[in-house]
Amino acid sequence: MKKFINNPERVVDEMLEGMVAAHPEYIRKLEGFNVLARKNAPVIGKVALVSGGGSGHEPAHGGYVGKGMLDAAVCGNVFTSPTPDPILEAIKAVNGGAGVLLIVKNYTGDVMNFEMARDIAEMEGINVDYVIVNDDVAVENSTYTAGRRGIAGTVFVHKIAGAKAETGAGIKEIKATALKVISNVRSMGMALSPCIIPAAGKPNFTLLESEMEIGMGIHGEPGTHREKIRTADELAAQLMDKILEDMSLHAGDEVAVMINGLAATPLMELYIINRRVHDILKQNEIKIYKTFVGEFMTSLEMAGCSVSILKLDDELKLLLDAEADTPAFKVI
Amino acid sequence: MKKFINNPERVVDEMLEGMVAAHPEYIRKLEGFNVLARKNAPVIGKVALVSGGGSGHEPAHGGYVGKGMLDAAVCGNVFTSPTPDPILEAIKAVNGGAGVLLIVKNYTGDVMNFEMARDIAEMEGINVDYVIVNDDVAVENSTYTAGRRGIAGTVFVHKIAGAKAETGAGIKEIKATALKVISNVRSMGMALSPCIIPAAGKPNFTLLESEMEIGMGIHGEPGTHREKIRTADELAAQLMDKILEDMSLHAGDEVAVMINGLAATPLMELYIINRRVHDILKQNEIKIYKTFVGEFMTSLEMAGCSVSILKLDDELKLLLDAEADTPAFKVI
Repeated sequence: MKKFINNPERVVDEMLEGMVAAHPEYIRKLEGFNVLARKNAPVIGKVALVSGGGSGHEPAHGGYVGKGMLDAAVCGNVFTSPTPDPILEAIKAVNGGAGVLLIVKNYTGDVMNFEMARDIAEMEGINVDYVIVNDDVAVENSTYTAGRRGIAGTVFVHKIAGAKAETGAGIKEIKATALKVISNVRSMGMALSPCIIPAAGKPNFTLLESEMEIGMGIHGEPGTHREKIRTADELAAQLMDKILEDMSLHAGDEVAVMINGLAATPLMELYIINRRVHDILKQNEIKIYKTFVGEFMTSLEMAGCSVSILKLDDELKLLLDAEADTPAFKVI
Repeated sequence: MKKFINNPERVVDEMLEGMVAAHPEYIRKLEGFNVLARKNAPVIGKVALVSGGGSGHEPAHGGYVGKGMLDAAVCGNVFTSPTPDPILEAIKAVNGGAGVLLIVKNYTGDVMNFEMARDIAEMEGINVDYVIVNDDVAVENSTYTAGRRGIAGTVFVHKIAGAKAETGAGIKEIKATALKVISNVRSMGMALSPCIIPAAGKPNFTLLESEMEIGMGIHGEPGTHREKIRTADELAAQLMDKILEDMSLHAGDEVAVMINGLAATPLMELYIINRRVHDILKQNEIKIYKTFVGEFMTSLEMAGCSVSILKLDDELKLLLDAEADTPAFKVI
């Protein structure tokens, strides 16, 4: 296992120390919990947004804590849901009196633990609601999921619901906007190589040198099938076929595009994928409003990528363009 | 070779098409040349900044074209200097009448070709000057270099000279500021795995499963030595020892830190490295003004990282904090 780590059991703690050291102007760590909170939280009168899940997907979710996105990120062990305790602490730490919206990726453990934390917080008198992101069109059920998985499209939910919260909107309105994003976004990924969970010390699956996994999840969960690696154009088309099949997009519609690297894939290759994704959208007379290319929701050191397409309307465009200032996502 | 590409000979062209498709609000490509220019260039009366070099280091340098950084990036083939022709075209395209400053990493081919382009541009009546970045303390001479190599510290030169140019400063002043950054910045890197140049189709060096290369360059050039992989803390200390040995830093001095991923290394590991780098600086009573953790100057799909330390003064702090709005580097 070739990694820049010290103790495999302490990678999340040490990563969080390194994150807080790097970005004290944005984030602080809650004493005794693996929670990163916005430095100036709670913001009185603003609905607070809390997300999180297993670690190993950085910059998700700690990198998105800051103005115009999240108020807190709860960081579980690698690929492991955080327990209700730290989620509850996050809710209490960032609640500014206007309520807290939880943004949860659809994994059984996350859904269960975020719901449990919500129930306890509500009993303590905090108004908490939640949305579940399930943007991955690859498979209907998976290793850790009943229903579709939540992957990189979640970052659009953070950005747009975060911008809505900054406008002073109430929790119901923000939830409605978040649900619109969820219903409008579709993603799908593919992997060229596995990743190694530090505490396990060995790859979580194996692929032949000529092989790739189509539709795999961000924890290395199986996708739809394996096949011989093909050209970037063919692979982009394969992902887009499945995504577009699942969306109701018509000529003249506007979308945002996210080409997400899972970690080891160079930007060069992501841009080559983006080139073909743009061509396909143009052939379908879909207008591309904004494109994001980079690493937004990773999977340790896995080589691979995902494509997310978000259908926009005037409200979503305005919120997508609103200023965001976080360690890993900035819109000026 | 597992890569998302189509034709190994066309990776740079297709990447640039994908970049322009992704970021039309920032960049345009010069017709017939692999040059990305700022969309609104030339900016009349502003000194223009041009950088570039071989491709495969993305987001360097095309990702840094935009407000507060570069006016153009010249993109050679993978790990190959661009010829004087596209450099000359870049100079002509972005010259706003106040002159053009070239920011060149210290590789023999780059220095020769940028100098040649400068000579021709000067004969055509354009005021062109240049600076050479040589921040890598690992080795004194290397495969492609007489003297020290230029690596991730170059991004600090782009940021700070770019901010200076936005103030309306003249070319001599901007050059002086760029030279101050160059004289104040030191970097060093290490690699866990090689990378594969697409046209070659095989790794450019080999490392055993337990082995790493200390001080290697961003093209896989040899560093100081190979050794068994150690803990992140030990490795961070090894890089910092060599960097600090070469800098004149005293208790109370302020620095900016850049922890740069070479591509395949997850953010998690970069933050674990950052944690120790901060500890070492604090032990030396050095104040950390700002920290950047991410992928700034990569090497295709190589696993590894570099650390850069920039000694600051009041001018450099002000310029580092100035707004920058480019595809890959934003300061709000």
